[in-house]
Amino acid sequence: MTVNRRWVLARRPTGEPAAADFRIEETPVPAPGEGGVLVRTLVLSIDPYMRGRMNATRSYAPAVEIGAPMVGTAVARVEVSRDPALAPGDLVLAQTGWQDYATAPARRLRKLDPADPPPSTALHVLGMPGHTAYAGLLEIGRPAPGETVVVAAAAGPVGSAVGQIARIKGARAVGIAGGAEKCAHVTGTLGFDACIDRRAPDFAARLAAACPDGIDVYFENVGGAVFDAVVPLLKPFARVPLCGLVSQYNETPPGPDRLAATMRTFLSNRITVRGFIVIDFAALEPAFLAEASVWVRDGRLRWREDVADGLEAAPRVLAGVLRGDNFGKALVRVAT
Amino acid sequence: MTVNRRWVLARRPTGEPAAADFRIEETPVPAPGEGGVLVRTLVLSIDPYMRGRMNATRSYAPAVEIGAPMVGTAVARVEVSRDPALAPGDLVLAQTGWQDYATAPARRLRKLDPADPPPSTALHVLGMPGHTAYAGLLEIGRPAPGETVVVAAAAGPVGSAVGQIARIKGARAVGIAGGAEKCAHVTGTLGFDACIDRRAPDFAARLAAACPDGIDVYFENVGGAVFDAVVPLLKPFARVPLCGLVSQYNETPPGPDRLAATMRTFLSNRITVRGFIVIDFAALEPAFLAEASVWVRDGRLRWREDVADGLEAAPRVLAGVLRGDNFGKALVRVAT
Repeated sequence: MTVNRRWVLARRPTGEPAAADFRIEETPVPAPGEGGVLVRTLVLSIDPYMRGRMNATRSYAPAVEIGAPMVGTAVARVEVSRDPALAPGDLVLAQTGWQDYATAPARRLRKLDPADPPPSTALHVLGMPGHTAYAGLLEIGRPAPGETVVVAAAAGPVGSAVGQIARIKGARAVGIAGGAEKCAHVTGTLGFDACIDRRAPDFAARLAAACPDGIDVYFENVGGAVFDAVVPLLKPFARVPLCGLVSQYNETPPGPDRLAATMRTFLSNRITVRGFIVIDFAALEPAFLAEASVWVRDGRLRWREDVADGLEAAPRVLAGVLRGDNFGKALVRVAT
Repeated sequence: MTVNRRWVLARRPTGEPAAADFRIEETPVPAPGEGGVLVRTLVLSIDPYMRGRMNATRSYAPAVEIGAPMVGTAVARVEVSRDPALAPGDLVLAQTGWQDYATAPARRLRKLDPADPPPSTALHVLGMPGHTAYAGLLEIGRPAPGETVVVAAAAGPVGSAVGQIARIKGARAVGIAGGAEKCAHVTGTLGFDACIDRRAPDFAARLAAACPDGIDVYFENVGGAVFDAVVPLLKPFARVPLCGLVSQYNETPPGPDRLAATMRTFLSNRITVRGFIVIDFAALEPAFLAEASVWVRDGRLRWREDVADGLEAAPRVLAGVLRGDNFGKALVRVAT
């Protein structure tokens, strides 16, 4: 226990991360300070978000520096403790990074029960991926019983939890996964109502057939071709929790199609885009009229009209409105 | 009062509506049925949504048929009434369409006060455009005092109400308009904090300078180049009420850039897209762990792991995760 191996970022990848983007190093095993512990990494979690950290651009979290260890979460065992809350042999959830040993303040570690469920579940179904599925589905997706929830990477840790929680809440769950074996797992073991193989040549048609009433909630974690097939199936008032875009993480932006880059901005800045038509807020009309009438009377809400004369003017007024030629509300005086 | 002139849709436009897309017709003035009224159109409102109704594709509302009168709302005067609630000479808000006369059930008409404010305000600041601004800004945008609200077409009926209501609620209002005269109106008469001319060659830089802390709410009603300049300025947790995309209404879809078509789908289907990162829901973690632990114990929430052996495997496991090769949660067993 004197040598610590660790993977550091050797260079920033272009496209798919290659072996030469990483370098393994040996360093001395560090010693914990007062209130800290030394832990041995047992099981390291590998997650899609790590690709983003390899880029120079800061997203919602800082980039990994060149020469610094790759970040990551692990189930780890306490080897040395300088805090009474933890003892050697205890299992903890720790931000070890990609290395054999790490030190951390004891108070920042979550102690794990070694027995049931297995500690590694803290890295998925009872950890960050499960939490992601639970929060995104229930707080943003808000599926009602009987609604259709679609999720891609359905055999993965986030997708599998999304579909199962959707069913627990009474919704229909349709998964998308790569290959027949994963699809069989999704419908068999996980109990989804359907699963479509994204590699099928008629993928979009199969997805449409599996969602005969359309899609109420699409939990987005992949982007790309799957998103393209989903968009035409989204029902009015559908919700799209935008959790990840893994199919795009290796892309070098931007091409002539700016959809991918825009969706990435929505994700990393946690932006809400919500289409609406005024009739959706019909119930708000009395409140609007009451408030706005007072504001108009007080001069706090001013208005301007751009009036054309004669019914014959209507077509050219419309063409002007679409060009932005009007200065104030476009009106046609038809009679007096 | 025997001839009714009306504009009908002669053919569906390609791009900007042309004169030949419309045809003026003369028909007999219709007679109202029991409970109905005959109204004379006085002031007809021309609005961007009309362009969408000229397309064959059904959006949130049905298309205007070829040969049918163009739809529209007007301030109208009752000429003949077969309902005691309205008398000849009364002013009403009516869906007359683009024509001199129309009939309607009396109960579907909003009676207007002829005096103050002017009846035509029911077509803008105290009508549908004002209601649109009020609902979209306050229900979706939800600006907090001190936040920055940006709106385009700021001299128009929706944009002018958005910015003024934003200021009434204590937010900063930055408008975008076409030309110096409109901008002067927006900052002068309407009292916005700033207004940027969208035709300025350095438009994007000027917008950024007017929003030094970024944008909290972007009320989207134009799309296109304005949206492109706004996206990089959106702050984390920004809200984008997606009300209209007038710069795109004349476009013939779709080109290689699918952003415009996708935004149009979000709008017409009133879709909510909301980016999120699990740490935004840190407060939900205890509830997640409590519920999910029970579900895992009961076998209602199942999980699967895909474990690679040895720290040296980490880079190739990450590459596989990004390709979707893993089947279950990707983990690296580093030690036992």
